[in-house]
Amino acid sequence: MASCCRPSASAAADPGDHPPMDHLNDPSMTTVPAPHQTVREILHPQSVAIVGASDSEAKWGGRLLRYMLRHRHDGPLYPINARATELMGLPAYPSVRDCPGSVDLAILLVPREHIRAAIEDCIAKKVGCALCITAGFAETGPEGRADEEELVALARSGGVRLIGPNCMGLMNAHHNLCATTGVVMGSIEQLPRGGIGMASQSGALMGAMISRGIDVGAGFSSTISVGNQADLGLNDFFEYLIDDPLTDVICLYMEGVKDAERFTALLARAAAAGKPVCIAKSGRSEAGAKAAASHTASLAGAWPAFEATCRRWGVYLFENIYDLLQGAQLLQRGKRCHTNQVAVFSGSGGGGALLVDALEAHGLALPALSAETEAAVADVLPATHRQLPFDFGMLNHMVPPDPDVAGGSVGIALDRAMHDPAVGAGMLLLTTQPGQERVVEAAIAAADRSDKPLLFVQGAGNHGDIARRMLRDAGQGYFDSTHDALAVLQAFAERTEPEPPACAAAPPALPVDLKPGFQTEPAARRLLEAAGIPTTRWREATDVDGAVQAARELGGAVAIKAVSAQIVHKSDIGAVRLGIEGDDAVRAACEAIAEAARRAGVPGLDGYLVTEMWKADAELILGIQRDPDFGPLVMVGAGGVLVELMKDVQLTPAPVSHATARAMLERLRSLPLLTGYRGRPPANLDVVADAIVRLGQLAMSGDGRVLELDINPLFVAGDRIAAADARATLA
Amino acid sequence: MASCCRPSASAAADPGDHPPMDHLNDPSMTTVPAPHQTVREILHPQSVAIVGASDSEAKWGGRLLRYMLRHRHDGPLYPINARATELMGLPAYPSVRDCPGSVDLAILLVPREHIRAAIEDCIAKKVGCALCITAGFAETGPEGRADEEELVALARSGGVRLIGPNCMGLMNAHHNLCATTGVVMGSIEQLPRGGIGMASQSGALMGAMISRGIDVGAGFSSTISVGNQADLGLNDFFEYLIDDPLTDVICLYMEGVKDAERFTALLARAAAAGKPVCIAKSGRSEAGAKAAASHTASLAGAWPAFEATCRRWGVYLFENIYDLLQGAQLLQRGKRCHTNQVAVFSGSGGGGALLVDALEAHGLALPALSAETEAAVADVLPATHRQLPFDFGMLNHMVPPDPDVAGGSVGIALDRAMHDPAVGAGMLLLTTQPGQERVVEAAIAAADRSDKPLLFVQGAGNHGDIARRMLRDAGQGYFDSTHDALAVLQAFAERTEPEPPACAAAPPALPVDLKPGFQTEPAARRLLEAAGIPTTRWREATDVDGAVQAARELGGAVAIKAVSAQIVHKSDIGAVRLGIEGDDAVRAACEAIAEAARRAGVPGLDGYLVTEMWKADAELILGIQRDPDFGPLVMVGAGGVLVELMKDVQLTPAPVSHATARAMLERLRSLPLLTGYRGRPPANLDVVADAIVRLGQLAMSGDGRVLELDINPLFVAGDRIAAADARATLA
Repeated sequence: MASCCRPSASAAADPGDHPPMDHLNDPSMTTVPAPHQTVREILHPQSVAIVGASDSEAKWGGRLLRYMLRHRHDGPLYPINARATELMGLPAYPSVRDCPGSVDLAILLVPREHIRAAIEDCIAKKVGCALCITAGFAETGPEGRADEEELVALARSGGVRLIGPNCMGLMNAHHNLCATTGVVMGSIEQLPRGGIGMASQSGALMGAMISRGIDVGAGFSSTISVGNQADLGLNDFFEYLIDDPLTDVICLYMEGVKDAERFTALLARAAAAGKPVCIAKSGRSEAGAKAAASHTASLAGAWPAFEATCRRWGVYLFENIYDLLQGAQLLQRGKRCHTNQVAVFSGSGGGGALLVDALEAHGLALPALSAETEAAVADVLPATHRQLPFDFGMLNHMVPPDPDVAGGSVGIALDRAMHDPAVGAGMLLLTTQPGQERVVEAAIAAADRSDKPLLFVQGAGNHGDIARRMLRDAGQGYFDSTHDALAVLQAFAERTEPEPPACAAAPPALPVDLKPGFQTEPAARRLLEAAGIPTTRWREATDVDGAVQAARELGGAVAIKAVSAQIVHKSDIGAVRLGIEGDDAVRAACEAIAEAARRAGVPGLDGYLVTEMWKADAELILGIQRDPDFGPLVMVGAGGVLVELMKDVQLTPAPVSHATARAMLERLRSLPLLTGYRGRPPANLDVVADAIVRLGQLAMSGDGRVLELDINPLFVAGDRIAAADARATLA
Repeated sequence: MASCCRPSASAAADPGDHPPMDHLNDPSMTTVPAPHQTVREILHPQSVAIVGASDSEAKWGGRLLRYMLRHRHDGPLYPINARATELMGLPAYPSVRDCPGSVDLAILLVPREHIRAAIEDCIAKKVGCALCITAGFAETGPEGRADEEELVALARSGGVRLIGPNCMGLMNAHHNLCATTGVVMGSIEQLPRGGIGMASQSGALMGAMISRGIDVGAGFSSTISVGNQADLGLNDFFEYLIDDPLTDVICLYMEGVKDAERFTALLARAAAAGKPVCIAKSGRSEAGAKAAASHTASLAGAWPAFEATCRRWGVYLFENIYDLLQGAQLLQRGKRCHTNQVAVFSGSGGGGALLVDALEAHGLALPALSAETEAAVADVLPATHRQLPFDFGMLNHMVPPDPDVAGGSVGIALDRAMHDPAVGAGMLLLTTQPGQERVVEAAIAAADRSDKPLLFVQGAGNHGDIARRMLRDAGQGYFDSTHDALAVLQAFAERTEPEPPACAAAPPALPVDLKPGFQTEPAARRLLEAAGIPTTRWREATDVDGAVQAARELGGAVAIKAVSAQIVHKSDIGAVRLGIEGDDAVRAACEAIAEAARRAGVPGLDGYLVTEMWKADAELILGIQRDPDFGPLVMVGAGGVLVELMKDVQLTPAPVSHATARAMLERLRSLPLLTGYRGRPPANLDVVADAIVRLGQLAMSGDGRVLELDINPLFVAGDRIAAADARATLA
């Protein structure tokens, strides 16, 4: 990664396994001893103590001991209980200190008032990590937060890492480590091993994902419930999963982002490693952010900046954890989706038609099969049914699948349709037809042969459980809901390829004389000019005579506006006049503007801005925003009323490449207004994209002095563009 | 229903059970004998023959015989098979003619080439109805369609009704009649009795709905797969279900509409009877309509007209059959949703937050509980958690549910939140928390106590099957997907109350001198004036001098347009000039317009239209459309670019009441542009609504002479409106 660009090179370049400490803003850090263990060691403990173990499975400490016994086969396990000498057949000890051997991982389930003492015991025993499942800390308010900070300081002083508190523990399936209270662990025979690595800010949702994952045949490497992230947090496990050779796909459930810079660097690293990252994050809405904040001790942060950063790094974003899990399962199986064209297959003509109807609302479409594909399915489908959606219910009646021909006619039809270059993914809706299992068998084989995702939707109820089991055992997964399957495909289609930061040009030098704070429009125009972004021709005048002279120089009708750093919304108070022509009219307009400013409580103006009038075919808004977590972002959106009614805006982290800028324009729903609407000349999108790129460079310049900048509107007419109004705030 | 209004009074008034024949456009109808049986009698047969019965369950005829035996306990059952004397323990007969007793229902499963003979046998035996499951008729093309028509004529000539062909039969659960080949019937102990009546154009989807219904504890009265509807069709069974006292809710899966007038009359009758109608229809998209057409022998028709008609009559519209079924189950249990405010409850804080995030995209919102409700939950929820979403995972930790207090703290919290007037519905997301069953037990009781829907989403996998069974056995139903639950609530929120047709004013008399065909703008303006809809002031001139005079009369700047029935899009060819002031400018504009018309291939103009200029705060489009199936509709939408980019249009059948017209305006996404956008004066929505009402009257006038009419734009400024351009086509 080139060093001129965010995310910070240092974090991105961190190659290894050493627990990163640079995000702990603890002034006493220099005196803290090195932790006993790395994150990798913590997730591969040899010896485990359960502090607060119990004989009763009605208690957390009993359940966890039972699960550990059920699923763990090697290494010492020490139940800790002050009032027991034996628990579930194992010798019990009054304290971690009393364990006969060393302890790598201590799982704490004692009441919160005993946690401090338990950590002191861990320090004395040189435990690698204390996994604190007990709740009642930062999530309960300031007092709990203070207690939690004390615990962290204590643990660090003794070289002990901390997971939690307020979490549901972790599972390392390949290491037979079931250190979680998730109740599903009590009902399965073996840990579901596989390539999905997971870190979650919700223990319950981690449990639900594992539960669903078991049903659909998904397998996991490590899953970690991070709780309050008092010490080790989501970023630490994210980093571990990137480096973990047994993890093929990373799944994150997030509520807030701690250390966005490191998180972004890790996104970049995962992208560089080619390891897909799937995220579901709560707090997309204001109400959801509030709900998440009351849940764990984290603030959600602004969704748009988070989303834009994730999109930049090729993250797959999902709306809920079930979509997250099933999307990850498809990716883990190596399936990739290169277009939004979905081949629909169904056991019912009606079901196929309903699915096709639903595609558009998800940004998906039904592909037209090529003539070659039509010809290739001629031997298995009747002439009237060689275009999508394929109806295998009908096929069953017409041509019984021939088990000798690689899955029979169903397999052949699926193979050839999935192979069509127009097809990005497939969906097979199973209904209650007889012989469903035969169709499923053929389809599983066809799905395995394709590198595109083929999603199975079981439209039958429990009656279809045999097919479900076949799909689970084959590791294929299945959906019970067409909505779910469509949501996963939508997430696939909306995902964009990761892109390294654009480093083409050096950021422009800012005009040296601009003061901090809100800028007048002339100052904002000078910023744009420094960045090489065209503006409407303009003159600044200090008085009415100057304005008259300026209007003469510009020629024709002009716009006149007040210049004053005290006026943020000039139009709203009547301090803008358009289409003014002739000396007298200019004078009258200036006087009216000064009067309007006086009425609005601005007694004196700095002067007048006089600009040419412009005939635009389209209007856009462009801007720079600065997110407190994710830094500078560049925005482009539809101008006028559309931005508010349609929220038709695209956002991306600065700097911006030309390709990304063009892609942003092409994703605008109001793109038709730019490409020759009702006979208007089409806009040159490359010219607009160039302005977006330059805005990105401006956002990077002067050490981020541009806190905020809006061009509203940017006039567009064919090959020409011009910023017609602008405002900015500088640091 | 008042006789001045559609839907036709005759069909709507039809009270009874007599098989309606008026939709059979058969010229020989007068010579056809009355059918032996009514639809009610057909669905309650005493004796049933299975033509093509078999000993082998691998064959349709064997499966159906097995299902009939498994589920039917009274009345004679006659297997018909030319080569058998006994089948599954019953005496078999070579032909229906040979049955020892009378036959009410004959189910035909023989190959298509034997169907004609089977129907001849039915006629000879005076069978009430032949249920033809065999496929291969109209759905295969013109030849099959001709064969099908012959069969219908044959059956009618003998008084035999026909269901199908190409269907999967029917079930009357309360009559123990399992006359369907749906394979789920082979795996259930008893027919799922209940109050949901269903007619479906897809047999497979009917089977899937029954299968899912059994899982979630939904019960059915009668379910009918209507197939190709050669004789008895969806409307006949729809009518039966409206009158059936054992049917509480009607579920229809539709692909096309046969006899839209009768269908609309039945919608009105169901609304008058207070019986909810739930519909999923394929063909909402062009691709879906094409897929549906290739499935059964029906054309989908235009979705917008269908949707508008359904909305008018209070239909609940769903996107797929699973939402349809589960929505129907909630309605069948008496649950009604009066607002779009959804109280979210969850076993996980994270799950609750994600659900809240998802509400907005479905047109739903999280309600703010009243101070009274907050106070009322104070004894069961901690102070920080008395606003939604409630986190019962947390509640479990804090206050164990007290079984003595009507469901414990969970029950109390649910009761009081559901009782809050702001709450329209509730959603409870269950995760893998321990003690889930206890939460579910309390929540089932709370759901029973509320007349609002409380939707259960089982977030756990198979691990949550105990809770699923509890919910099924309680008849509550459950969702496995939050997407599904949200889609059902969205359908509930989007449903509008049924409204009898508006009959306020007599339709206006049309100007007598207007010729059929496309109208010039002056003619269209006279139509509007006849209806009492304001237009911009205008004069028509036959020549340039007349235009000069007209402009003088109007005063100020004017707009000038070409008048010619040969020009449909005046602006596109340059035949409109705006802001023209002064005699010379008017002359120049007229000449330019004439020249533009000549260039566009229109050598002579009828004259010039001169109108005042108008300063509008907002622009709308209004129109009359005439659907070939559903008749005249009135449209209102956002003007300018918005209609194309946002498809922001509302449609309703004419005539339109003032209340409906206002509701249409309030449903426009661009409503903010009308209610005081950026300091503009708000539009008087009643004035705009009045124009919509008048347009509805115009659509009804002159026996529907107005085939099409567009006002584009309708200028709006405060209390004033004016049509600034209009075109129309008359019959």
